[in-house]
This record gives sequence, C-alpha cells and structure tokens, in this order.
Amino acid sequence: MNAQRNREIAQRYWQSLGKRDWAAFRETLAEDVLYEVPQTRERVRGLEAYVDFNATFPGDWTIEVVRLVADETGASGQIVFRHQGQEQVGIAFLQMADGKIQHIFDFWPEPYEPPLRMSRYVERY
Amino acid sequence: MNAQRNREIAQRYWQSLGKRDWAAFRETLAEDVLYEVPQTRERVRGLEAYVDFNATFPGDWTIEVVRLVADETGASGQIVFRHQGQEQVGIAFLQMADGKIQHIFDFWPEPYEPPLRMSRYVERY
Repeated sequence: MNAQRNREIAQRYWQSLGKRDWAAFRETLAEDVLYEVPQTRERVRGLEAYVDFNATFPGDWTIEVVRLVADETGASGQIVFRHQGQEQVGIAFLQMADGKIQHIFDFWPEPYEPPLRMSRYVERY
Repeated sequence: MNAQRNREIAQRYWQSLGKRDWAAFRETLAEDVLYEVPQTRERVRGLEAYVDFNATFPGDWTIEVVRLVADETGASGQIVFRHQGQEQVGIAFLQMADGKIQHIFDFWPEPYEPPLRMSRYVERY
C-alpha cells in the first residue's frame, strides 16, 4: 500500500539524514526534489543541490523521529535534531510520488514566550 | 477506513475552529483531550477547558488548511491562520482514537533570518 511505502520512505529519509548516509539519502529523493523552508524562504532545487545543502552542514548530528503520519500522498513528521549539544524540534511535510520524495516543506519552530490568554485553563509544563 | 475518517475529523476540527462553531468543534474532541504547545509549554486539559481556551481568543479569524496528511492513528496539518490583518502558519499533529481527537500538538513556526549556509545552492524566494 502506498501509505505504508510512504511511511517507510519518510523513515529512511530521516534515518539516512541522521547518519549522513548520503547514498541511502539519495535513494529517497526524486531527481527534481524541491526543498523549501517557509520560515526563511530558503529553497534548494534538485537532488544534487539538496544533498550538497545537507552534506555541507557543519559537524555531526542525530535525528530522532518522534511523530510520523503517512498517507497515499506523502508524510508529515516531527523530529528532534541534536547538534553540538543542542536540541531542536523540526517538522516536515514530505510530498511523494512513485516512491520518491518530490517536495519537502521544512519547519523549525523555536520556543517563544506564551501570549496572554483570556482562558483560565492554561497550564505551563 | 480509519485513515479516511481521521482525515475528515481533522477537516472538521479546523473548519469548525475557523468558524467558531463550538458545537461542531466539540464533536471532534475526546472528553479528556489534551492540548499542548511545545514551543511555549502551554497545556490545556479536557474538552470544556479546550473549548474555553479557543472561544475566549479575541476577535474573529479564519483558518485555511493548506496541507493535510492522515493515517490510522491521526493526522498532521498545516494551516494559515488569518487574524486582525495578519497571517500565521500553524501546524498540528492530532492523535485520534475511536473517531475523536485525543491529543493535539500545536506549533506556530515564526519567520526567522536564515543562518549562514556552506552550500552554494540555496535560493531565497
């Protein structure tokens, strides 16, 4: 089933990226993959460029997938990216077709101070 | 199929929230729904509290779902939240069981300046 296949592709995408296994990483991507970071309006076009973009990122890191939803059209996952003693939450939507990732929308939501709320039911954890 | 049902629940969740249709909104939620904003560490427990949390938000708003992935366990969606002349991107993971939303992980990724990249393939859009 496509949903199950797309789930496995998403898992291989993050697993190979977390190990800097660029051969396995390439296998998950379409030739004309498009990578976008809506928060910064960064864009990288094509498999070679996107591998370069990741392979030139300094230092080592690990990736842990903490949430993953997949269907016939792609997947969405939440990860913990650990790099140089820091943890960052990442979220991506991966659009897939024919067993390859075609379009990546990557988000890096940073902590912020909560706004004032009118509701008395909000706790902090 | 559960994936299709979960997709419909996610659609009703955002549609009713965007219309402040609290009766329809309630229908999507489990009694003991748990709402969390990892970026602020805000938490709201239970259906009544979560409706209050949303219903007391000031002013009107609209919600447009721009991406939605659903499977047997829940859904993940990206929305545009329009409020008082501003647009904000929201992302949520909705864990579901028995046709109700049990756990919401809500993210509000803000624009930021892109870091320096070693790769020469990055464009801005």
